[in-house]
Amino acid sequence: MQNPFFKNKGPFKVSDILNILNLKNISIDTDQIITDIRDLFTSKTNEITFFHSKKYKNFANNTKGSFCLTTEKLKHELPKSCNPIIVNNVLVSTSIVTAKFYPDSINDNFDDTVTETNATEFKDKIKFGKNVLIGENVKFGNNCLIGHNTIIEKNVSIGNNCSVGSNCIVRNCIIKDNVKILDNCVIGKHGFGFFPEKRKNLRYPHIGIVIIEDNCEIGCGSTIDRGSMSNTIIGKNTFLDNQIHIAHNVKIGENSIIAGQVGIAGSTIIGNNVKIGGQAGISGHLQIGNNVEIAGGSGVIRDIADNSKVMGYPAKYIREFLKENK
Amino acid sequence: MQNPFFKNKGPFKVSDILNILNLKNISIDTDQIITDIRDLFTSKTNEITFFHSKKYKNFANNTKGSFCLTTEKLKHELPKSCNPIIVNNVLVSTSIVTAKFYPDSINDNFDDTVTETNATEFKDKIKFGKNVLIGENVKFGNNCLIGHNTIIEKNVSIGNNCSVGSNCIVRNCIIKDNVKILDNCVIGKHGFGFFPEKRKNLRYPHIGIVIIEDNCEIGCGSTIDRGSMSNTIIGKNTFLDNQIHIAHNVKIGENSIIAGQVGIAGSTIIGNNVKIGGQAGISGHLQIGNNVEIAGGSGVIRDIADNSKVMGYPAKYIREFLKENK
Amino acid sequence: MQNPFFKNKGPFKVSDILNILNLKNISIDTDQIITDIRDLFTSKTNEITFFHSKKYKNFANNTKGSFCLTTEKLKHELPKSCNPIIVNNVLVSTSIVTAKFYPDSINDNFDDTVTETNATEFKDKIKFGKNVLIGENVKFGNNCLIGHNTIIEKNVSIGNNCSVGSNCIVRNCIIKDNVKILDNCVIGKHGFGFFPEKRKNLRYPHIGIVIIEDNCEIGCGSTIDRGSMSNTIIGKNTFLDNQIHIAHNVKIGENSIIAGQVGIAGSTIIGNNVKIGGQAGISGHLQIGNNVEIAGGSGVIRDIADNSKVMGYPAKYIREFLKENK
Repeated sequence: MQNPFFKNKGPFKVSDILNILNLKNISIDTDQIITDIRDLFTSKTNEITFFHSKKYKNFANNTKGSFCLTTEKLKHELPKSCNPIIVNNVLVSTSIVTAKFYPDSINDNFDDTVTETNATEFKDKIKFGKNVLIGENVKFGNNCLIGHNTIIEKNVSIGNNCSVGSNCIVRNCIIKDNVKILDNCVIGKHGFGFFPEKRKNLRYPHIGIVIIEDNCEIGCGSTIDRGSMSNTIIGKNTFLDNQIHIAHNVKIGENSIIAGQVGIAGSTIIGNNVKIGGQAGISGHLQIGNNVEIAGGSGVIRDIADNSKVMGYPAKYIREFLKENK
Repeated sequence: MQNPFFKNKGPFKVSDILNILNLKNISIDTDQIITDIRDLFTSKTNEITFFHSKKYKNFANNTKGSFCLTTEKLKHELPKSCNPIIVNNVLVSTSIVTAKFYPDSINDNFDDTVTETNATEFKDKIKFGKNVLIGENVKFGNNCLIGHNTIIEKNVSIGNNCSVGSNCIVRNCIIKDNVKILDNCVIGKHGFGFFPEKRKNLRYPHIGIVIIEDNCEIGCGSTIDRGSMSNTIIGKNTFLDNQIHIAHNVKIGENSIIAGQVGIAGSTIIGNNVKIGGQAGISGHLQIGNNVEIAGGSGVIRDIADNSKVMGYPAKYIREFLKENK
Repeated sequence: MQNPFFKNKGPFKVSDILNILNLKNISIDTDQIITDIRDLFTSKTNEITFFHSKKYKNFANNTKGSFCLTTEKLKHELPKSCNPIIVNNVLVSTSIVTAKFYPDSINDNFDDTVTETNATEFKDKIKFGKNVLIGENVKFGNNCLIGHNTIIEKNVSIGNNCSVGSNCIVRNCIIKDNVKILDNCVIGKHGFGFFPEKRKNLRYPHIGIVIIEDNCEIGCGSTIDRGSMSNTIIGKNTFLDNQIHIAHNVKIGENSIIAGQVGIAGSTIIGNNVKIGGQAGISGHLQIGNNVEIAGGSGVIRDIADNSKVMGYPAKYIREFLKENK
């Protein structure tokens, strides 16, 4: 799928990429063209990818990308069709190259294409509150309600029978059918991802989006950040209560129920039919199985297998926790 | 009191009610009229009530309601004046019947009756910020301030000397005198209450409101949900800090102090002179006594007696907790 | 520095101050003039200060203030140049006197000086979203973006290359260069500080401000309260994620990273290069050293030395915590 939210400013020559990375004396034809940047699994001919950890060896062995930002140590894992470009810090270099292709994905400047609703084609189709602002190329299904003061930024797509509350900001987001987003939510801003540096941290680009599937409900004052290289996804018929924070790249399955003030850190994947009690926190890069129950206030710092019920900080089996804490 | 917020679409015939529940062959006169739905304690002649748990046996024995949604097992607890209507799932059926009487209480669609303040009778009496929106039949006392971009939805009543900050949304709420609501609050939306079902959860109606008594302060970015069958109440002179979440049906007593980011789950009742430290969480359906102190960060999962000081997760007596955690 | 945000309504005579405190028969010349109120360390000739705890003995011994609200027990610590004024409750009396000098610092009434941006001198210099409101005497550097519906209240100063998101409220705040404040933040309201009293709590004045240093980023939906007698400060290049609450008088150092939903209670001081995981809470009046790491979900209730890594509630050394909680 063509990402409708971030415009690819490429293609660039290999020499352009080497220049911004301050690399010289590389033994590859610098006149070749690079059309895009993607991860190891999805990159294709004439595209550049990145490989920074042995964990991804299998993907590296099979990548279709023509160029790869990597290290001296890892380069041997790449197929012959892929030209390694050796760098000191793969992730920083990836960030710099991604920013060259997608400069608009680094900062979340407010959308200056918005207009008032009576200047849009939707004025007779959608029920708008007062002072609603709609960006360029926004799409709406039938029978939608958009509350007062809400801002739907450019390229956002909203399905049928959706309701967005008042004072919301929605950007870089695809919303399917029968979704309710309650008041004061901010959906689709970039995640909290950057390389810490003295004096001035280096933000990395977020070219992922937020996808909210059919029949979801998102409670008041919640924030759902878009992904960096992949998308943040809320599965079908999953309900979120108020003041919840979903970080970038998180994927939540279907039919899950998440109570107030829960926070889920970046890149964690949550299964179907999961119940999470109020104020629970889940660390980043974890796998939470299907049918898991996490008690309110728990702090989850390890993967959780299907059908488990956990509680505590760090979260353990709920019976064990309650036995220890009578 | 007549609920000014949700219009009763009844009365309905018994046959109408049986129809929406797909019930047949019931041995009661289906031409009888049902005027309203209420709980066991408050329901009156010609009204329908519901009884789903032995816990409420005493209320069931004495209910004045003429009809009751209940089970084969429980029906014997009802007085002769009350006709049992046997259903598979009492709460789901109650939800369906409540939705028939009060269809507007299920969804929180934005209030389309709002107008700008210079179109209201209040323009010379109340000090309004810019872009304030006021719904139909809103009432204000004297000497009130309403901040920029704030939305006061229909039927809300605000007392004397009140201040509502900027970017707030207030609906289904009665605010007494000398109350301050700070910026970015959402007061009076429905609670996080629904019956989980595959593909499409069934939301249940929320016909309760929020009542904020005299001299309260509600901090920035807080959310206070209205009740389902009863009201959510903040007692006199109780102060809430920023980013607090108060779920549906919660009742907080007088002179209580609740620090930032606290969450209180549904139907919990909190006494007078209670102090709750920052980020503490309190589970639903609990009783917290008077003069209780709950340390910041605690997770309360059991009732707490008057005058107790607790800490930890699960919260225990503070001395015990600190002895164990030197 | 002259505080640009709260106008000093003084000077007052000693007799005026004694009157509001209901004090009589004081053996000092009541015609003397008092020009301001400050803490022991910064107060000068003709100013009044306050001294309520032996902890501040050294400051009391050397204060330059001419008058001091204090107790019979403590007054002997003051130099001869300082006239003690004996009161029952030093902090309540200080609050009352501060309110006399700075009455506007008690309540955060919305700024009624704001105008739409095309009525300001900035319309050609700053890139404004729709419906932005700007108060009197606001200052902007070059190259700033201010998002839709955002309110910048009177006297706020914003540096060069800053971006404020949509739906923000900024007051009583000095923002330096290259700062990003994301959507839905409330910066600069008074802290959660008051004297609990039956029926009607007594709010104390907050004459401090918020200072956000160069290169900071503040995440969506965060609240940063201004100080009471001192300032709330976010140090250079410190990044805050979404839904964070920073209470009054907190000072955070440089190059620190604070993840989502963290709460920091009043008057705590945090060093440089500190990392705080999501949902961690830090109690008030603590000292957190440089290079400290606090794991997500931790509850910090004691000071933490430089270079420590802590986890748990109450937080302890991370190795110890993980050994105990395998």
